[in-house]
Amino acid sequence: MPVDLMEPELLLPVKGVRLCAIAAGIKKNGNTDLVLIEVAENSHVAAVFTQNKFCAAPVILARKHLQAAAPRYLLINSGNANAGTGDQGLRDALQSCQLVAEQAACKIEEVLPFSTGVIGENLPPGKIASALSALYQGLSQDQWKNAGRGIMTTDTVLKGVSKQFKLQGKTITITGLAKGAGMIQPNMATMLSYIATDAAVSDEMLRQCIKSAVHLSFNSITVDSDTSTNDACVLMATGQAENKLITQADSEDYQLLLKALTEVFIYLAQAIIRDAEGATKFVSLQVNAADTEHDARQVAYTVAHSPLVKTALFASDPNWGRILAAVGRAGVDFDLDKIKIYLGDVCIVSNGGRDGAYTEEQGQRVMQESEISIRIELNTGVQSCCIWTSDLSYDYVKINSEYRS
Amino acid sequence: MPVDLMEPELLLPVKGVRLCAIAAGIKKNGNTDLVLIEVAENSHVAAVFTQNKFCAAPVILARKHLQAAAPRYLLINSGNANAGTGDQGLRDALQSCQLVAEQAACKIEEVLPFSTGVIGENLPPGKIASALSALYQGLSQDQWKNAGRGIMTTDTVLKGVSKQFKLQGKTITITGLAKGAGMIQPNMATMLSYIATDAAVSDEMLRQCIKSAVHLSFNSITVDSDTSTNDACVLMATGQAENKLITQADSEDYQLLLKALTEVFIYLAQAIIRDAEGATKFVSLQVNAADTEHDARQVAYTVAHSPLVKTALFASDPNWGRILAAVGRAGVDFDLDKIKIYLGDVCIVSNGGRDGAYTEEQGQRVMQESEISIRIELNTGVQSCCIWTSDLSYDYVKINSEYRS
Repeated sequence: MPVDLMEPELLLPVKGVRLCAIAAGIKKNGNTDLVLIEVAENSHVAAVFTQNKFCAAPVILARKHLQAAAPRYLLINSGNANAGTGDQGLRDALQSCQLVAEQAACKIEEVLPFSTGVIGENLPPGKIASALSALYQGLSQDQWKNAGRGIMTTDTVLKGVSKQFKLQGKTITITGLAKGAGMIQPNMATMLSYIATDAAVSDEMLRQCIKSAVHLSFNSITVDSDTSTNDACVLMATGQAENKLITQADSEDYQLLLKALTEVFIYLAQAIIRDAEGATKFVSLQVNAADTEHDARQVAYTVAHSPLVKTALFASDPNWGRILAAVGRAGVDFDLDKIKIYLGDVCIVSNGGRDGAYTEEQGQRVMQESEISIRIELNTGVQSCCIWTSDLSYDYVKINSEYRS
Repeated sequence: MPVDLMEPELLLPVKGVRLCAIAAGIKKNGNTDLVLIEVAENSHVAAVFTQNKFCAAPVILARKHLQAAAPRYLLINSGNANAGTGDQGLRDALQSCQLVAEQAACKIEEVLPFSTGVIGENLPPGKIASALSALYQGLSQDQWKNAGRGIMTTDTVLKGVSKQFKLQGKTITITGLAKGAGMIQPNMATMLSYIATDAAVSDEMLRQCIKSAVHLSFNSITVDSDTSTNDACVLMATGQAENKLITQADSEDYQLLLKALTEVFIYLAQAIIRDAEGATKFVSLQVNAADTEHDARQVAYTVAHSPLVKTALFASDPNWGRILAAVGRAGVDFDLDKIKIYLGDVCIVSNGGRDGAYTEEQGQRVMQESEISIRIELNTGVQSCCIWTSDLSYDYVKINSEYRS
């Protein structure tokens, strides 16, 4: 059961984007597992990918194709990651792109491949070939929810969101999808996320948008510290809303677009944490007054990854000593007497130990909630960060010891 | 149930060391929780402590006392860590030392305090005061097993070992104790370990011994990546075996002593992993042919801390893709085509993907064992490391969500 997360009632079409999803037989349970996304000609597309050295074949190929041409098609399969598959994996990914290019009469470099699922098994290009014609024929603007379902693996709920705002009197639409529930500490991207807007924005400004928005969203979440081999996040802009082309980072239009996109990115990143494998808590970790942002993130991630903090969160146990111990081993310099740690609105640590006014009842009250905030005031500088994480439950162990068997 | 670990049948007395353990009422379950260790005059004592910034009051005081005088008494309580307790914690630790000094008619600086247990609760010096007379009167050479039981917290089995060897015709005895099962990624030391020998060895050589032995033992294990606030490891040498005093690191005698001590340290460190909270597997992680030892350890610890690798180990599932993904995110440079990964004697990864000869049956055979070795050949240099870890089971979550409640 995800923490305070419902499937979206409606995902709005984005002018210039068509989608289709079908069951091609890649997933063993027969669910939808193959998705094609088409962006209109003259669209701009920006993407970021996993920094894992063992990145998957589709990641290698998508990076290469993105350099060579403006993408027109995104082919995404779930159920098989095509990772750890060596040269055969690259040939299979290339063949999938070739099949799309033939069907759509475009160049092979205009197709980006994506895969998510089990690592180390070969992709079945035959199944993809059989499904492609129906997939291409079925493309339509209103298939966002089906596409969202088609990219799910251990996710328990479709993650998507739409948002509209005005630019110079024109209505701009943004719709985004994401999937991911485990092997989540994205490093430049999440598991998979596809976000489209009809705003008119230059290539360079679009790349700035994705960089800035990813930093504050998908690169600020962690379930289990594991970075996937297949992470990818793609931002598409079709320009069909007919606003004046955004070309300057200091323009008001750029700031409005960036703000709206960042909200969508953060919603999707938080949705991944709310649906984290076995999660019963949604935890915000705010670190303030640090010397550098790096220090702030170091402290936040050390607390977020501590199995002892995570099991205490699962137990709704205000075992603040475990938070203190994690902060202490983060490798960041601070003055023990100046640091303050808050659980929700309750100060738990000051003057190098338990706060004088703290009572167990206060801590218990905060920990019983399903949404919990932990705030650490280092008091060594002016930098800060906010990241989101989940707890560590029996179900996390269950899901990850049973998956793939 | 620990993995292939039995309580020692016999722990040998060490000439010049006396011990006593009693139940002082600090642990809620009434078990033994207060231990006094006495080392004879003219002994040498070396110690290493946690690097956690939030180190406990007894650690602060023990470090200070060790600088000021040669220790005669070690007072250890379990059930309460006296950590996160601020100035009151320091006063309580000092008062405990004062009580021992009065009882034993020694200087307060000759007493080292140690605590392990729940973080953030005040030590009850009254209970310690009431117990001290009986504790002092009960000191004897043959109380090693009782002392070992007195320092246990979530440990399920007493961890101790004895070893004898010959130096110049004299029999040298080493006996050691350790405790710890969770919050284990020691950084300069383990949770708590006390090792004594009757060998005659200079202060400087004793410090070299502990540094070298700790690096290869307690600093090469991890259960859950959490470094305790209270870690301490103490090595005592009474000199009563009457061998010629060891003063040179290049002497044969020093090498023999170091070898024997290192074996004892590694036995105790491995015992902590075998009894790790919820452990069903004992896992050796060997990383070879790395550029630097730092690189080797970085790769080893990234795999050892991966919750996905740990749950696959629990499930006896040869999900080698998770090992590959963890190696890939370790932040260490290597050539994908040259790296090789072995599960036991089975090559699972070569040429950037699954080894051509690998079969699931081979992986399954290795994973079904309770002792599993993972070997990673980076093939970038000549450095290596070996660390030990455990799996992540339902019982780890159970123990850590129920402990303290």
